[in-house]
Amino acid sequence: MQYEQIQRDYLARINTKLQSYLDAVQEKSIVSEAMAYSLMNAGKRVRPVLALAFCEMLGGDVQAVLPFACAVEMIHTYSLIHDDLPCMDDDDLRRGKPSCHKKFGEAYALLAGDALLNLAFETAFGRFDTVESDTALTCGRILSCSAGIDGMIGGQTIDLMSENTAISIEKLKKLHALKTGALISAPCQIGVAAAHGSEEDMARAKAFAAAIGLQFQIVDDILDITGSAAQLGKPIGSDSENHKSTYVSLLGLEQARQDADALRKTALDVLEVYGEKAAFLKEMTVALTNRDH
Amino acid sequence: MQYEQIQRDYLARINTKLQSYLDAVQEKSIVSEAMAYSLMNAGKRVRPVLALAFCEMLGGDVQAVLPFACAVEMIHTYSLIHDDLPCMDDDDLRRGKPSCHKKFGEAYALLAGDALLNLAFETAFGRFDTVESDTALTCGRILSCSAGIDGMIGGQTIDLMSENTAISIEKLKKLHALKTGALISAPCQIGVAAAHGSEEDMARAKAFAAAIGLQFQIVDDILDITGSAAQLGKPIGSDSENHKSTYVSLLGLEQARQDADALRKTALDVLEVYGEKAAFLKEMTVALTNRDH
Repeated sequence: MQYEQIQRDYLARINTKLQSYLDAVQEKSIVSEAMAYSLMNAGKRVRPVLALAFCEMLGGDVQAVLPFACAVEMIHTYSLIHDDLPCMDDDDLRRGKPSCHKKFGEAYALLAGDALLNLAFETAFGRFDTVESDTALTCGRILSCSAGIDGMIGGQTIDLMSENTAISIEKLKKLHALKTGALISAPCQIGVAAAHGSEEDMARAKAFAAAIGLQFQIVDDILDITGSAAQLGKPIGSDSENHKSTYVSLLGLEQARQDADALRKTALDVLEVYGEKAAFLKEMTVALTNRDH
Repeated sequence: MQYEQIQRDYLARINTKLQSYLDAVQEKSIVSEAMAYSLMNAGKRVRPVLALAFCEMLGGDVQAVLPFACAVEMIHTYSLIHDDLPCMDDDDLRRGKPSCHKKFGEAYALLAGDALLNLAFETAFGRFDTVESDTALTCGRILSCSAGIDGMIGGQTIDLMSENTAISIEKLKKLHALKTGALISAPCQIGVAAAHGSEEDMARAKAFAAAIGLQFQIVDDILDITGSAAQLGKPIGSDSENHKSTYVSLLGLEQARQDADALRKTALDVLEVYGEKAAFLKEMTVALTNRDH
């Protein structure tokens, strides 16, 4: 009950703040429309919620972390827009609606993605009453390092280069740690930084994020074989059709399930030290990782 | 003579620093190769040189402004890569060599552009011995505001929306002030900020940049009619072929020439107050604006 209340409160704050950044854009055009179309498309806001939850668990001010949490969501959204483009995954649908380039055309979708990436950094370089300059720089550094060539873009690159190629389990883990893991780790770290957490807190945030990021990906791979399209949120069987190496193809179904369960336990164990204060994050972890596999 | 020495020194510092950022990338791949291909493609480095020159004119430390100057060049390069893509201008050549997507393919060029935009902000969010946190935040704010939807991307958007459409002279000025002007103004402002210049210095930097940015564009439009491809650095006559409104089509050749000369004088006049310290910037202004029109 309380979990759902907090979740609703976080979502409301995040969506209001995201909308305020869009409202502040001066140059209204088809590109600002495309930015809003993709950014306000009813995502679950997992990443910014993680930032708020880590910050609050450590006694920090949600107002302080909110801009950086929104910046993470902008970067996530830009990456989806560019990933959907014809030269990348060529996806016509995103969350049940036409993808950005299907709706607005390729050129405007490209610019909308560029503009959202840029807006994330405009946001992180904002004038803050709630955050000291050094903390803002730390959060911006976490953000930019996670999103770039040694983070998410590095993972997208490995993914592209691995198409129709068998890869090792180590390479697959690295691919996912960068492609999706980096932008799950970033908000957890930003939450710690905004709350002035310790180095131990930062290490725990990274360990937690690494565990849930990988767990989520393994369950995705399992559901691609065993699940329904409704469970997976996208057509099943696409990985083997695309000759992609997956945890299941590399380790087998049984080992994949055991690994997923172990990772989920790891994530929950990391939070133990925070006792009752971790109640929301624990429930969130269970909700995120509790897909039937 | 001294001008050319300083110019060479600035270029060497900029190119060495840019190379060091590329060298620091951990994830070497076709994308990091594409980033280097476009970033180290012997550009004139007009933008970062402006940052260094403004900083030094005001008694600032070139080492302090160098990272932000490099960040401007990374943003400029990313914008060229994305502008050349088939869904945008579809250009096969850039500075006499195959454009990034012609050389590496569309998907990798898209990611290389994204990665350079991100690297610009990683650079601006760096750990600096030479710059205080507040100055770094100010430089980052100038950078991100100039590059985004209310800056360069806003201009790219107006440009796309104006294709095959007659637009007013006011709209044309706005298009260029955003599309190219913003990223000429940014390094001038960053130079002032890094040198802890006054508000008056900042206002002069903006006035100077607005004048040379527009002058440069008007001369481009004139040469598209009267010049040779060698003078213009690209095929002539392309604007009227594309039914683009230009200064010449809207104001006529004579008025365009008068405006260009007046703007050049404005830029030089703005620098008068700095006396001898402005010697390099004045010579640079003459060199930049002195194309035969």
